[in-house]
Amino acid sequence: MIDGSIRLAIDAMGGDDGPAMVLPGLAVALVRCPTLTFELFGNREVVGPILERHPELAARARLHHTDVAVPMDAKPSQALRMGRRVSSMWRALECVKSGRAEAMVSAGNTGALMAMARFCLRGMEGVDRPALAAIWPTVRGESIVLDVGASIGVETQNLVTNAILGAAMARAVFGIESPKVGLLNIGVEEVKGLEEVREAGQVLRDANLPTMRYEGFVEGDDIGRGVVDVVVTEGFSGNIALKTAEGTARQLAEYLRMAIGRTLRARIGYLLAKPAFARLRDKMDPRKINGAVFLGLNGLVIKSHGGTDELGFASAVELAHDMVRNELQRRIAADVAVLTETKELADAG
Amino acid sequence: MIDGSIRLAIDAMGGDDGPAMVLPGLAVALVRCPTLTFELFGNREVVGPILERHPELAARARLHHTDVAVPMDAKPSQALRMGRRVSSMWRALECVKSGRAEAMVSAGNTGALMAMARFCLRGMEGVDRPALAAIWPTVRGESIVLDVGASIGVETQNLVTNAILGAAMARAVFGIESPKVGLLNIGVEEVKGLEEVREAGQVLRDANLPTMRYEGFVEGDDIGRGVVDVVVTEGFSGNIALKTAEGTARQLAEYLRMAIGRTLRARIGYLLAKPAFARLRDKMDPRKINGAVFLGLNGLVIKSHGGTDELGFASAVELAHDMVRNELQRRIAADVAVLTETKELADAG
Repeated sequence: MIDGSIRLAIDAMGGDDGPAMVLPGLAVALVRCPTLTFELFGNREVVGPILERHPELAARARLHHTDVAVPMDAKPSQALRMGRRVSSMWRALECVKSGRAEAMVSAGNTGALMAMARFCLRGMEGVDRPALAAIWPTVRGESIVLDVGASIGVETQNLVTNAILGAAMARAVFGIESPKVGLLNIGVEEVKGLEEVREAGQVLRDANLPTMRYEGFVEGDDIGRGVVDVVVTEGFSGNIALKTAEGTARQLAEYLRMAIGRTLRARIGYLLAKPAFARLRDKMDPRKINGAVFLGLNGLVIKSHGGTDELGFASAVELAHDMVRNELQRRIAADVAVLTETKELADAG
Repeated sequence: MIDGSIRLAIDAMGGDDGPAMVLPGLAVALVRCPTLTFELFGNREVVGPILERHPELAARARLHHTDVAVPMDAKPSQALRMGRRVSSMWRALECVKSGRAEAMVSAGNTGALMAMARFCLRGMEGVDRPALAAIWPTVRGESIVLDVGASIGVETQNLVTNAILGAAMARAVFGIESPKVGLLNIGVEEVKGLEEVREAGQVLRDANLPTMRYEGFVEGDDIGRGVVDVVVTEGFSGNIALKTAEGTARQLAEYLRMAIGRTLRARIGYLLAKPAFARLRDKMDPRKINGAVFLGLNGLVIKSHGGTDELGFASAVELAHDMVRNELQRRIAADVAVLTETKELADAG
C-alpha cells in the first residue's frame, strides 16, 4: 500500500462478457474508490485496446499478458489442468499470494475459481475448510450468509469456523462492532441429523466470543427478515437457499410484469407509479449486491457473478476495496486465534 | 365410501385459531366438494356450538369428543406423552388407521403431527422413511417439492423413494401421466458430499420407471421456474428452500408496499392498477397453496399451515379430497412395487 492506495489483482478474462465488461466495470469502481490500483491479467490483444479507451483506468493499471483463459463451463479439474500457472485466473491469484496485490476479483467460473484459489492460496491457519460468503439483501439492510457452496456436509467445527469468518466479514463490511450471528436450522425439533448444528450452537454459546453475539437458530424465512447479521450454514443448504431466493425474486418480478401488462388501466397506473417501481426494481436488482467472497484462505478472493454487467462488476470491486481497507484478513486471523485460545483454556481447565 | 362420498378425519383443535378457523374452513370446502363427510375430533364444549352455526356442515359431520388438544408449541416427545391415544390429533389419525376415514387433516403442530403419524400409521411397505411434500407455486403453475422436513440427511435410497412418492402425488393431484422429476443439487461440480445425490440420479436413470420422466439435476432457482413437476431433496435443504422462498416472497411484498406508499403519485397509480395488484397478491397468497402432505405412511395425512385462516384450511381439505379421489395411496403402493421388481430383476440379472 503506497500512500493509502489499495491494489487489486483482476482476472480480466472472467465473466460471460469478459474484458468488454470487466474493464468498464473497473473504470466505474475507480470513480467511486479513487485510491485503487489494478494488476490486470488477460490477453493483451483483447484487453489492450479496451484499456486504451479508458485512460483514467490505464493510468492506474498494469496489464500482464496471459495466453490462457479458463472457459466459463470448464470443470474444476479441467480448469486446473489447463489453467494452473498460466491462466489469467491463476496468475491473478498468485499476485495475491506473493503480496503484490491485496485481493483478487474474478467473474469467472465459480467451481474453477474455488479449486484454483484453494490450490494456490491454501487455507489460513486454524481454518480447515474455506467458505463462500454471500451478501444477502434483507428488509433491514444486508446480511452475510455462508457457506453458499464451498464445502458440503454439516460438521460442528466447520459451522463454528464459518460463524467466525462471517462475523469478521460483518465487522469489516458493515462496520458492526459485535454482529448478531444465527445458525440456520429447521423448525422441526427432535428430528435426526441435526446434532452437529446443535453442537455448534453449544460451542458458540460457551465460547461467548467478544467478536459476535450468538443469537441461536434461525430458519429460512428469517434470512430475508434480517433477524441476524450473519447466517451460518453448510454449503449444500446455503447454496440452495441462495438460489431459491434468487429464483423466487425472479418469479415474483414475472408475476408483477404479468399483472401490470394485462389491462390499459393497469398500464396507466404503472406509468404513474413508475418512479416507485424503479425503486422497487432497484431493491430487487441482483447487480447491486454482486460478489461472493471466499473466506479463510491466505488471501482475499471475490467472485463476481459470471453473467453480471459492468455495474455489477464494479460492486464486486468496491466490496474488495472495503474489505481490504477494513483489514478483513487480519480480523479473521485474530478471531480464529481467540477461539483457539478459548478452546485451549477450556481443554487445560 | 358410500355413494362416492369421501370421508375425512379432522383434528378440529389444530391451528393457531383452532375450531373457530377449522369449522368455517370445512364449511367452505363442503361447498366446493359436496360429497365430503367428516369425522371431527375435538372438545365438544368448544366445537359443538360452532358446529351448530353451520347446519350444512353439521349434517355431514360426526363429532367425537376429546379432552386433550396438543399445544402448538409442544415438542414431539411431549406431544406423544400427553396426546397419544387421547388427543384430537391422535384420534383423527387412528380413524384413518382403522379405515373409518380415507385421509386426515390437521393444522396442528408439525413436529407433533409427524411424530404421531409415524407412530400411529407406520411406513408403507417398501418405504423406509416417510416424506413431507409441499405444493410449490411456479411461473408455469405448481410443482411438488419433497422432502421439506420429515427426515434429514442425504441417502440414495431415500431420494429414490421420494422421487416415487412425489411422482405418484403429481399424477394424482396434477393429473400428469408421466411427471418430470428432478433432483435438487448445487451447481458447483466436483465438490465433496454429493455422491448420494449423483447415485440416486443414476438409479432413477437406470430404472427408467414408467411413472415418471427423470430429468436430471435442478438448482434452487429452477424450482420457481417450474422446470420439473417434482423436485426431490432431503428434509433439511428442502425445508430451508421452502422457508427461504416464503421469506423472500414476504420481503418483496414489503418492498412493494414501501415503494407504493411513498408518494401521492404512486398511490394514485396504485389505485388505477389495483385489480392487477389484487391478481398479483392472489398469486403470492400462501393460503391458496396450503397443505403439505405426509407421503409413504399407511394413510394420508395433510398438514395445513398452523397460522392459516378458513380459506387456507379449506384448500388443505380440498387437497385431501383430490388425493383420495385419485387414489394416491394405491398409486404409491403400485409404484413402489414396480421399483422393487426392477431392482430384483436387476439383482437377478
